[in-house]
Amino acid sequence: MRAITLLTDFGTADYFVGAMKGVILSINPQAVIADITHEIPAQDVAAGAFTLLAAYDTFPEGTVHVAVVDPGVGSARRPIVVSAGEYLFVGPDNGTFTYIFDRDPAFEAFHITQTKYFRQPVSNTFHGRDIFAPVAAALSTGVNPTSLGPPISDPIRLSPPAEPQIIHVDRFGNLITNITRDTFKDGASLAVNGRVISVFRSFFGENVGEANEPFAIWGSAGFLEIAVNGGSAAELLRGKRGYRVTLDSPNSFTS
Amino acid sequence: MRAITLLTDFGTADYFVGAMKGVILSINPQAVIADITHEIPAQDVAAGAFTLLAAYDTFPEGTVHVAVVDPGVGSARRPIVVSAGEYLFVGPDNGTFTYIFDRDPAFEAFHITQTKYFRQPVSNTFHGRDIFAPVAAALSTGVNPTSLGPPISDPIRLSPPAEPQIIHVDRFGNLITNITRDTFKDGASLAVNGRVISVFRSFFGENVGEANEPFAIWGSAGFLEIAVNGGSAAELLRGKRGYRVTLDSPNSFTS
Amino acid sequence: MRAITLLTDFGTADYFVGAMKGVILSINPQAVIADITHEIPAQDVAAGAFTLLAAYDTFPEGTVHVAVVDPGVGSARRPIVVSAGEYLFVGPDNGTFTYIFDRDPAFEAFHITQTKYFRQPVSNTFHGRDIFAPVAAALSTGVNPTSLGPPISDPIRLSPPAEPQIIHVDRFGNLITNITRDTFKDGASLAVNGRVISVFRSFFGENVGEANEPFAIWGSAGFLEIAVNGGSAAELLRGKRGYRVTLDSPNSFTS
Repeated sequence: MRAITLLTDFGTADYFVGAMKGVILSINPQAVIADITHEIPAQDVAAGAFTLLAAYDTFPEGTVHVAVVDPGVGSARRPIVVSAGEYLFVGPDNGTFTYIFDRDPAFEAFHITQTKYFRQPVSNTFHGRDIFAPVAAALSTGVNPTSLGPPISDPIRLSPPAEPQIIHVDRFGNLITNITRDTFKDGASLAVNGRVISVFRSFFGENVGEANEPFAIWGSAGFLEIAVNGGSAAELLRGKRGYRVTLDSPNSFTS
Repeated sequence: MRAITLLTDFGTADYFVGAMKGVILSINPQAVIADITHEIPAQDVAAGAFTLLAAYDTFPEGTVHVAVVDPGVGSARRPIVVSAGEYLFVGPDNGTFTYIFDRDPAFEAFHITQTKYFRQPVSNTFHGRDIFAPVAAALSTGVNPTSLGPPISDPIRLSPPAEPQIIHVDRFGNLITNITRDTFKDGASLAVNGRVISVFRSFFGENVGEANEPFAIWGSAGFLEIAVNGGSAAELLRGKRGYRVTLDSPNSFTS
Repeated sequence: MRAITLLTDFGTADYFVGAMKGVILSINPQAVIADITHEIPAQDVAAGAFTLLAAYDTFPEGTVHVAVVDPGVGSARRPIVVSAGEYLFVGPDNGTFTYIFDRDPAFEAFHITQTKYFRQPVSNTFHGRDIFAPVAAALSTGVNPTSLGPPISDPIRLSPPAEPQIIHVDRFGNLITNITRDTFKDGASLAVNGRVISVFRSFFGENVGEANEPFAIWGSAGFLEIAVNGGSAAELLRGKRGYRVTLDSPNSFTS
């Protein structure tokens, strides 16, 4: 019995997610389906890539992760399956799996061309239901990724950010940067929108700094986050995804 | 092991959906529960009917679909179970199953009167938990619909729209009409709010027409949809559910 | 096979809930995970406590309920497990389980100190993933609560409201009060914001009183609710959580 996760930008108000689950259960009634999220901002591949990165390796070995943030649905972009570490990934070839490739450079990717695994007829608008869900279900029953189509060596990757920046804003208004322990020099200070963040905390409730003062903290996804205890850093600093984070030493960040 | 789906207007912020799942698992711990959606607009039976139609037949044979959009909870409206095709449906008798009746004219419907399958005491306000969830769980364990109560021949149906119109607006702002391939004459053009839509595309990314130009496309639920690539047709055309869609030939639409 | 429920204020747009599910399935692939809700208002322990109360006992005996509304994450507040009735509860010791303690005064509580059940390394910011999910999964595999740490006799309880008040506003705008059948004297009338509610109904659709007139009704969670048929009592009465409910006889309410 294999777990299948779903990560999409479909929202949960429409029939889209339900239809994907129906297709999966029709092929593998034993599948255990877990939603990661369906609230990726519409067509925001980078947000999908980040969220997948932050959740995928909590799941058991053998889990099939389906990630469908797919601005190019119906066009020539390739549907792919990726085998990386102990996991399989299914989705459009548009950069969603960039961080997965970084984590496991020995990954293998395949262009899904074996239409016998698809739901027929394949619509032009809903490959989540017609291609990705049934392929994931097939994989969960033991179908080998190599049988889905030819290997490819050039899956699309998102360009790595050239500079430190905010890559995600979470529900609590915390600003997640692309700064990792590998790329951060101890003692550097940060600034967002001209506001310097000089306090580092080891946990949210720690009593360091003043009330309503923003602080930096190593977040649970492994990135440096900017937060305000009991408040929203996004509001206080008017920070948004893509905004540059200034470091006080240019050497302190290496992309 | 049978799948049970849930479709409601309960939202996901309250305890309502959790309570339904608890009741189901208490009766059938082996049930596989899948949410279709809980974000049907409050008391919007027509939206529930459309969403159920678009998802139900992706599920495996034998699935029990629970649909509770129930403005009349606590009143005399009948709780019913419907057997249609390979599926069972449970919910209030208020038109939610209209499309199911259309799809399978040989359906059978039963008035649920056997209170021994209910959760006791039955509240006046939450039949999703007290009637529909436990009845669905009982059905998933093999209880026969005929044992739930007497057959009925007059379940409520929504009036079919007299004219082509928008029946749903999805998360991406696509306008789903009630126009099907059976009711559409090739070559006809559409208009919404006076704006003519003359471009037809076969997939969303297809390079036909100009940027920001609305186009028509056969959607994944089998209806003609009006969309804008990378944008929202609902915003561009100020289209809402119930708005009329004008066809250039009166013969091109048959309700 | 035991059910595990999740109740948090994490929302569903981030990776948080997915990560908890991944951790659980990695430890107990047979776990049946059911969401109660993830939309508790951020850090609103009282709302979490109410929602848990309203849903927990619909689940089968042996269910492990995980409730993480955790303003003190990373601080010295204790992680606890509670055994009450036929259920287990896991979460921070901050009052979330107040109603559970009230329901079963013979409950047992334990301070979770056995770090071998934690996900390592334990972050300072996401104990839902690193402590509560793995401990719940361990419990679902049969680990005894007594083996998680020492018993405690002083878990935190929310102060009982000194007066009748609104404790929750649901999706439909119904105002749920803390008035129960035990604390309400028949014939008393209520007022919110100076507006007297003198009509009692036994179900939502009942034809009593005038249109748009608010009425009182015994709600499905066992509390007196104030509602408006087809409308929102919260809007009509401008009622919010914490607002006092006036009873016409001071003797009619006993906290």
